[in-house]
Amino acid sequence: MSAEIICVGTELLLGDILNSNARYLAQQLANLGIAHYHQSVVGDNPGRIQQTMQVAIDRQAKILIFTGGLGPTPDDLTTATIADFFQTPLIEHAAVVADIEQKYAQRGRTMTPSNRRQALQPQGAEILPNPLGTAPGMMWQPQPGLIVLTFPGVPREMYRMWQDSAIPYLCANGYGQEQIFSTSLRFWGVSESALAEKVDRFIQMSDPMVAPYAGQGEVRLRVSTRATDAHTAARKIDPIAAEIMAIGGSHFYGQDDDNLSKVIGKLLIAKGQTLSVAESCTGGVLGAMLTDVPGSSAYFRGGVMAYANEVKTHLLKVDSQLILDRGAVSSQVAEQMALGVRTQLATDWGIGITGIAGPGGGTPEKPVGLVYIGLAAPDGTVSSMEYRLSTHFDRELIRQMSAKQALDLLRQKLLNQ
Amino acid sequence: MSAEIICVGTELLLGDILNSNARYLAQQLANLGIAHYHQSVVGDNPGRIQQTMQVAIDRQAKILIFTGGLGPTPDDLTTATIADFFQTPLIEHAAVVADIEQKYAQRGRTMTPSNRRQALQPQGAEILPNPLGTAPGMMWQPQPGLIVLTFPGVPREMYRMWQDSAIPYLCANGYGQEQIFSTSLRFWGVSESALAEKVDRFIQMSDPMVAPYAGQGEVRLRVSTRATDAHTAARKIDPIAAEIMAIGGSHFYGQDDDNLSKVIGKLLIAKGQTLSVAESCTGGVLGAMLTDVPGSSAYFRGGVMAYANEVKTHLLKVDSQLILDRGAVSSQVAEQMALGVRTQLATDWGIGITGIAGPGGGTPEKPVGLVYIGLAAPDGTVSSMEYRLSTHFDRELIRQMSAKQALDLLRQKLLNQ
Repeated sequence: MSAEIICVGTELLLGDILNSNARYLAQQLANLGIAHYHQSVVGDNPGRIQQTMQVAIDRQAKILIFTGGLGPTPDDLTTATIADFFQTPLIEHAAVVADIEQKYAQRGRTMTPSNRRQALQPQGAEILPNPLGTAPGMMWQPQPGLIVLTFPGVPREMYRMWQDSAIPYLCANGYGQEQIFSTSLRFWGVSESALAEKVDRFIQMSDPMVAPYAGQGEVRLRVSTRATDAHTAARKIDPIAAEIMAIGGSHFYGQDDDNLSKVIGKLLIAKGQTLSVAESCTGGVLGAMLTDVPGSSAYFRGGVMAYANEVKTHLLKVDSQLILDRGAVSSQVAEQMALGVRTQLATDWGIGITGIAGPGGGTPEKPVGLVYIGLAAPDGTVSSMEYRLSTHFDRELIRQMSAKQALDLLRQKLLNQ
Repeated sequence: MSAEIICVGTELLLGDILNSNARYLAQQLANLGIAHYHQSVVGDNPGRIQQTMQVAIDRQAKILIFTGGLGPTPDDLTTATIADFFQTPLIEHAAVVADIEQKYAQRGRTMTPSNRRQALQPQGAEILPNPLGTAPGMMWQPQPGLIVLTFPGVPREMYRMWQDSAIPYLCANGYGQEQIFSTSLRFWGVSESALAEKVDRFIQMSDPMVAPYAGQGEVRLRVSTRATDAHTAARKIDPIAAEIMAIGGSHFYGQDDDNLSKVIGKLLIAKGQTLSVAESCTGGVLGAMLTDVPGSSAYFRGGVMAYANEVKTHLLKVDSQLILDRGAVSSQVAEQMALGVRTQLATDWGIGITGIAGPGGGTPEKPVGLVYIGLAAPDGTVSSMEYRLSTHFDRELIRQMSAKQALDLLRQKLLNQ
């Protein structure tokens, strides 16, 4: 009862893109407890696609999952090739034509004949709806005991279609009776090795399994187990998760889909407080993170991207003499930026960030990766921290990590308020 | 004369890691002009690895490239499985044993019997040295006309081994005489299908090849050809690229690594002009895009994240009565935001964005995905556009595409100035 993933696309064979779809589907199959021994990548070529299908069927695969090649261009051949393999005619679905037409109309565009090809599916196949794009997939059993699923190559469309339609379809067809359940515990301000040592006795356990992952300054511990239902899984996972959270202390900031922006939002809403930000080196990255959270207008009032020094002095009332004396990248300027934005935007909290994101602009005294974060509090006091990132980090990572560190500084203050 | 990539590792089948090795090797094969039609992923299982090899050989593959499964643990089976497939005994290489011993000693560790397994290679295989790790690979011709290469799964070790040893080996064996050269042409404001139809006669050509790719509102056309050197390739690619650029008209914005922020930067620097931005629904996304470009401080002075209406009126001097009359999401407010930020930050250009990023906040008259972009020009005039995104787009995509559309609006004005 195993599944094979077949990713179709010349861009994969040319190395133009990373195969993130295969990884996602592999994780999802593992979660559903569906055996999965082979993945293939093949170009937009009917003969090679069909030969790959034959190999998979010869290996007794019971689920064939295709990604890519569902679009409107002539090199999108996946649907027609699958139909031909099973000697089944293509049928146009009127509802899909209407859906494509409507989606194009919404964007002020007209459906072309080539777009209409996306409404063709093999006779007998169910439509796998695509809420986020124009190319639907199929859910089909072309012969007894064999399921064929197709998805577009665009990852976000594929993820949504998998969650909304493919999982229920597979479960309805007898798969996924025992699944992997897991929770991810999220930590900031602690290294992977330091955290792993602290929770080593849990990492040594076999059920639930505890595994560390690290990236972009954050560490996650994934606690997972296999069970028939969420309740049984929770009975195994929750006590271990609680112990690990306690060990993590204030480094532990959230769980699963949490991120620092969301956690900040919850804390500010609970206290009825507001926030504004003043960004120099991050130039909008912190604001973008905060406003990425739906509903953030309840506590985030806005901010100033103070890239030029004149913007710092004019809009944030930073003392121009201070910039001359201490430099724009200094703890004093970070503090004045935080105070200035808090006053100008009339918020409870104000954050100021100034630093050297690189690749140019570093000096021996103030190297690339040196960042100062100021935090103005509801009582009008201000504090700051120096944050030193590796000089080997690139501009994007320095900006991302600086913004997250600023959020964590605020989180710690909110917790201790 | 085609190559197949066979990645071995249960962690790939569980989705624990992205298959970046396959992408790297695919790019390298494309660069060397070695045909590559299939990639496979298989677990650490001798039977399945051998079956995958047989399929590749049946498909007339002349180069089999393995990654993964060369380590010292019991589930590292790749080398022994390949030797067994060709019924060849394993031989211990004394020089490799010495190398492993020395590398362990350097790290203060002692070589164990299981580490010693890494010195075993099939009789007749050449060692593929691993300067960065303990597991070497092999370069082997087990039968006439068939090359087998093995690499460890650790990307940085693999990359180095490929560059240092595999490329010279392949070239010495007659590969790499012709390589693929390509350029990507980038377009904004046109759908993949509309553009593909316009350039259909190029897409139908076989040399150079023209292939479309789409994502996040952008379309790319990749023009590629096979040639012995860059000069010969350019003679084939450049005239086609020029014709396509002309057909694309003002939708064409850049080439290869360009993005809209970089193109805007080049245009502003050429004109010696400056820019500021006022962001409501994008809340920093546009500023973050602009400041992601190193050296952007030469033309980007900063901006205001005007999330709350009071920030629009106080910092940007938007008329509060106008917000009451027309709503914060209106062309008039977008224009006043653009004018306000241009004046406050004393820049040549000012951009204002206001819209409904969702998922909440939409109404029948002003649905999620409705965005207004204002642009204040150096002569003090202001204009605006309405940008309607699919109501099915998520918040992140709406914000990203709105910011890019704002950049494109400025780009068009800069070109026509």
